[in-house]
Amino acid sequence: MADAEGGSGVSAKIITSETINPAYKRIKYGLRGPLDQRSQVIEEELAQGQAKPFTEVVKHIGDPQGLQGQKPITFMRQVLCLLTYPDLLQDERFPSDVKKRVREILSEKNGGTISSYTSSQGLKIVRQQIADFISTRDGYPEDLSNIYLTNGGGEAIRIVLKALMTADQEGPGRAGVMIPIPEYPLYSGRLLELNGYQIPYFLNEDDNWQLEMGELQRALNSSRPHCVPRALVLINPGNPTGQVLTYENIREVIKFCHRERLVLFADEVYQDNIYADGCAFHSCRKVLHDLGEEYRDFQLVSLHCSAKSHFGECALRGGYYQLTGFDEDVKSFFHNRMTLYSCPNIYGQVAMGIVCQPPKPGDDSYALYDKERTAIQKSMKEKAGMTTRFLNSLAGIQCNTVQGAMYAFPRVLLPDKAIQAAKDQGLTPDSLYASELLEATGQFVAPGSVMGQKEGTYHFRITIIPPLEKTVHQYEQFKRFHEDFMKKYEG
Amino acid sequence: MADAEGGSGVSAKIITSETINPAYKRIKYGLRGPLDQRSQVIEEELAQGQAKPFTEVVKHIGDPQGLQGQKPITFMRQVLCLLTYPDLLQDERFPSDVKKRVREILSEKNGGTISSYTSSQGLKIVRQQIADFISTRDGYPEDLSNIYLTNGGGEAIRIVLKALMTADQEGPGRAGVMIPIPEYPLYSGRLLELNGYQIPYFLNEDDNWQLEMGELQRALNSSRPHCVPRALVLINPGNPTGQVLTYENIREVIKFCHRERLVLFADEVYQDNIYADGCAFHSCRKVLHDLGEEYRDFQLVSLHCSAKSHFGECALRGGYYQLTGFDEDVKSFFHNRMTLYSCPNIYGQVAMGIVCQPPKPGDDSYALYDKERTAIQKSMKEKAGMTTRFLNSLAGIQCNTVQGAMYAFPRVLLPDKAIQAAKDQGLTPDSLYASELLEATGQFVAPGSVMGQKEGTYHFRITIIPPLEKTVHQYEQFKRFHEDFMKKYEG
Repeated sequence: MADAEGGSGVSAKIITSETINPAYKRIKYGLRGPLDQRSQVIEEELAQGQAKPFTEVVKHIGDPQGLQGQKPITFMRQVLCLLTYPDLLQDERFPSDVKKRVREILSEKNGGTISSYTSSQGLKIVRQQIADFISTRDGYPEDLSNIYLTNGGGEAIRIVLKALMTADQEGPGRAGVMIPIPEYPLYSGRLLELNGYQIPYFLNEDDNWQLEMGELQRALNSSRPHCVPRALVLINPGNPTGQVLTYENIREVIKFCHRERLVLFADEVYQDNIYADGCAFHSCRKVLHDLGEEYRDFQLVSLHCSAKSHFGECALRGGYYQLTGFDEDVKSFFHNRMTLYSCPNIYGQVAMGIVCQPPKPGDDSYALYDKERTAIQKSMKEKAGMTTRFLNSLAGIQCNTVQGAMYAFPRVLLPDKAIQAAKDQGLTPDSLYASELLEATGQFVAPGSVMGQKEGTYHFRITIIPPLEKTVHQYEQFKRFHEDFMKKYEG
Repeated sequence: MADAEGGSGVSAKIITSETINPAYKRIKYGLRGPLDQRSQVIEEELAQGQAKPFTEVVKHIGDPQGLQGQKPITFMRQVLCLLTYPDLLQDERFPSDVKKRVREILSEKNGGTISSYTSSQGLKIVRQQIADFISTRDGYPEDLSNIYLTNGGGEAIRIVLKALMTADQEGPGRAGVMIPIPEYPLYSGRLLELNGYQIPYFLNEDDNWQLEMGELQRALNSSRPHCVPRALVLINPGNPTGQVLTYENIREVIKFCHRERLVLFADEVYQDNIYADGCAFHSCRKVLHDLGEEYRDFQLVSLHCSAKSHFGECALRGGYYQLTGFDEDVKSFFHNRMTLYSCPNIYGQVAMGIVCQPPKPGDDSYALYDKERTAIQKSMKEKAGMTTRFLNSLAGIQCNTVQGAMYAFPRVLLPDKAIQAAKDQGLTPDSLYASELLEATGQFVAPGSVMGQKEGTYHFRITIIPPLEKTVHQYEQFKRFHEDFMKKYEG
């Protein structure tokens, strides 16, 4: 049979590792790789009472509440609670602005219930909340028709990257997408699936991970024989690199994309996570509009989600992408695309609206909201500074300032013997480091090779999320491990 | 520039209707087509106070709570409520089994909060609930490693259909999938996007929409020159056709797939919606296992979701697909595929677990749950019978018995003049009928051409969901419309 070819003999099964869609075989998402699996085994071993030099596994992933560093924002949870169980709308323990928000949402829903389907692009009232947020943030009005709600940021990335692809899947006519290195590996993972051509450009580690125009040009030029470059992905604030781009840097990037005819895909999910003094978040949309009429036809896609910031509602899977400069007929294709799922999940939708429109001064919930937000932001800011200082205090580690997002991406100057030992074990040197760290301390950091790095350099990604009181102890363990590791492999 | 070719002149934009991924242009989801858009306009006109011969738009889509026919099941909402806002775990108004369920789920979550990411395949505790449900339902044990939670049934359909595709996207090596006609149009819509080859097989309207082996064979044989047939989609109970397949019929289909080397994709989302006396739901998985050892290598994918049955939680987007007969290496590709989204939304996950493991006799919530479920099921059963009888009472309409699911799919014997009038307006005859019905009564039914039908026959899909007290009035309106329509176009 045609679909059983190529196997060793005829398999009785139809879908085998030989015959499954090759796109599925290309997928690789490094953050959930072997180290993640090993950390799960260690968790089970701990639960079974096995003795270890640590009592818990700490996963350095962007999961603010999961790492126990962050309590949920009360307003968010109260709104979702009453939406779920409207009997409590009579309960006096819930503030009036919570009830108002819930009634507004239910009034737009068929049957007055959260359970009914919404329009495919998402509830109008939520898209209006988002549009108002964008208008205020940027000082340029936004319309709800440009906003498409999704099940989290990951779905938005898939939908937009897929739209950028061409019919050519193999030859030089296939779509190319510029991605930063280091990157959030969902971009390369998804491009592998889609058979898009990856055009890696390196962030400048010596300039706190800003983008350099010469490097962008080099990367683009070298890609030309292999693909049709279509877009540039910019992650600001940076994941895994923790930088916040300057206004001027973003302006240069927009000019570059304009000159080179590239769509700009702005991943701005960490826009509320800014810590370093003198840093501010500038949306690509604002910088673009500031450039004026000449850039009227520029195409920009902006991404946001409910999982980060002081809200940190990861598993609700709220997110949106917003289109600037796309014609109505193209928008209708995006709209059609969304209809195939009926609608994004309603909790994620509502959460995204709350992230964009939290309580305001004068609202019943404002004082508590402000207190909670301030405490979280203060703690994150403290840990950002502490993490940078701690890492730089270790011999053989160099770390840029954590200006935003939730991560540091330090460079480790690994001894030659460690590099050789890794080679002997069939590992990348940074994986060896991360693996030994996990076994010694229970701390799971992502090796730099998962996010990409310049050849001959080695990094890892660590979050600033764990709560302050745990951080101190974790740093002690880390320091001991690092010193032991360097000694073990010294020349 | 290479990516601006083919347009009329050079567009300043990069992503235009000429250059967007052609896959997005192929997408077509008939249920959210022009009639749906017109119904939204009518709703706005009503809201603005425009006079119409009706006071509300009734959308005949599978949205049980949205159509006000169905109140949510209290247990479901109480669990979701306490998960969201665990302060209420101290509240005496909530039953002990609700609290127990909530504590069980939170204990499996990092940080003890619903917000943290779960494993990509979904929470273990939820997959265990589903595995236990399947084991009990079928009498054959199931393992949680075969269960993959998704954001609703639509996502499961996409993931599985995509896995079935081959590398060949255009030629005779592309994957073929047998789909029923009439069908739930997400199947054809998704196959259009994926460039899969559709192999339509006709359900037998004269035998209450059962599957005929001769017709399956005819459809398959005729497809052979054009594709590599990979799978057969079976929807049971049927959407839009409302039939419940007999045990014997399912057995024949499995034997057919086995002989012809096809994966069976069993869409069983309406498995709890059974009304007609003498009908029972038989899962494909049980029938397969009953066939014994000879079918050990048979590959089956089974689909379920939280949106239907007496729960009807549509916008929570809970769903799963379950794999039977897939090797570990193939399962790992499915697993990798899920990692690209981090995890499915947590409310959908929990809801799916509750659908599979509702309160049991002896539980605090059982009495109320049983009362609510029985009332909904009784009402649906009554409306199923009523709808069949009503439709058959109209001259020129023939309707099979609504045995299950939520729909009737009656045939309308349209007068020649109506067929001609439709042609003159560039509409299919069934769209003309549905369009005039919408304008006259506010009732939005899906024209048969959206779901597919034998050439020269005309149908529409109507739900049995609206509440009983409204149904009577709606039928009167409908009857008046139908008689007027037939008179208007009589020969």
